Amino acid sequence: MTGYALPIKRLIKELGKLPGIGEKTATRLATHILRASEDDARRLAECVMDMKARIRLCSVCFNLSEGDHCEICTDTSRDRKVICVVEEPDSLIAIEESGSFRGVYHVLHGALSPLDGVGPENLRIQEFLRRVGENNVEEVIIATNPSVQGEATALLINKCVKDLGVKVTRIALGVPVGGDLRYTDRMTLAKSMEFRRGI
Amino acid sequence: MTGYALPIKRLIKELGKLPGIGEKTATRLATHILRASEDDARRLAECVMDMKARIRLCSVCFNLSEGDHCEICTDTSRDRKVICVVEEPDSLIAIEESGSFRGVYHVLHGALSPLDGVGPENLRIQEFLRRVGENNVEEVIIATNPSVQGEATALLINKCVKDLGVKVTRIALGVPVGGDLRYTDRMTLAKSMEFRRGI
Repeated sequence: MTGYALPIKRLIKELGKLPGIGEKTATRLATHILRASEDDARRLAECVMDMKARIRLCSVCFNLSEGDHCEICTDTSRDRKVICVVEEPDSLIAIEESGSFRGVYHVLHGALSPLDGVGPENLRIQEFLRRVGENNVEEVIIATNPSVQGEATALLINKCVKDLGVKVTRIALGVPVGGDLRYTDRMTLAKSMEFRRGI
Repeated sequence: MTGYALPIKRLIKELGKLPGIGEKTATRLATHILRASEDDARRLAECVMDMKARIRLCSVCFNLSEGDHCEICTDTSRDRKVICVVEEPDSLIAIEESGSFRGVYHVLHGALSPLDGVGPENLRIQEFLRRVGENNVEEVIIATNPSVQGEATALLINKCVKDLGVKVTRIALGVPVGGDLRYTDRMTLAKSMEFRRGI
């Protein structure tokens, strides 16, 4: 990118910070934007800022939300007695797309990972336990990823929730071990919801 | 992306317009930006707008430029008697990075492609011929791509420039340095045999 004018170089550098985007791809994207219409470029820039400005976390389940409560928490047709616990909003989206769940969610925003300095205090676990304690919850479905960190998180939540006398289930291993919910097809996800078992 | 809030969906849609970015990748980029710092997101958005606002075409060679004349055209150490003709600014950058040329450029912004409706009038050919006629140019090096469109463009420029009595050359076609004959297509091999030179 040595030869490009400074404003182009700067955009290449910023695009290069995105995951999976190296310098070659960033250069291709930047030169595409350069050739694109003024309107397209403005919309892209505005959407970035608009999303950052408008998206916050639901005060109930910590899902990404435009308002204080997310769409799912405000939907009166959802069964509030069943809470599905996920690591990230992406997992929630994946489960929603599988169409296999009509309860509500709780997003932890991570999984236990002592090596990366992520302990229980860095996840939304306190808020979750308070929620379970106050809301006559009948079942907690743990849908953390089937990874070491996800399983450790599942064990911790299981222990805490069992103490409250609430039934705990774990999504079935039908999701490939070591995989990520984001990249699992909806059939597999639906099966893993259907075959959830007591732990 | 059904489940994402509207501002996220909109960004995913805009990112999906970029080349080589499908819905999955766009979603991954958008959720990354969502997690990124406010500063990083603002810089990205600003760089997009800044680049669109500040980059225009050099009035001499039609290279991308911040001012009326590009860096190469304002560089007094470059040899103005030799003009290298390229299809796109990317080609210019590639040649600059090879460090093999000290003359100046002319960017056509495309190549002849009748099927796509690109004729001579859509390229910067008139401007180029005027420039050659007015500036005591000694050599024109045609560095359009070695594709059907690039070769057609090269033939046209060759014809026009020859009429002005100026020497015209074409970059050599052959086996890429570091390449392997086994994996070189037969057209390239045929060219590299045809254009073999004494050593």
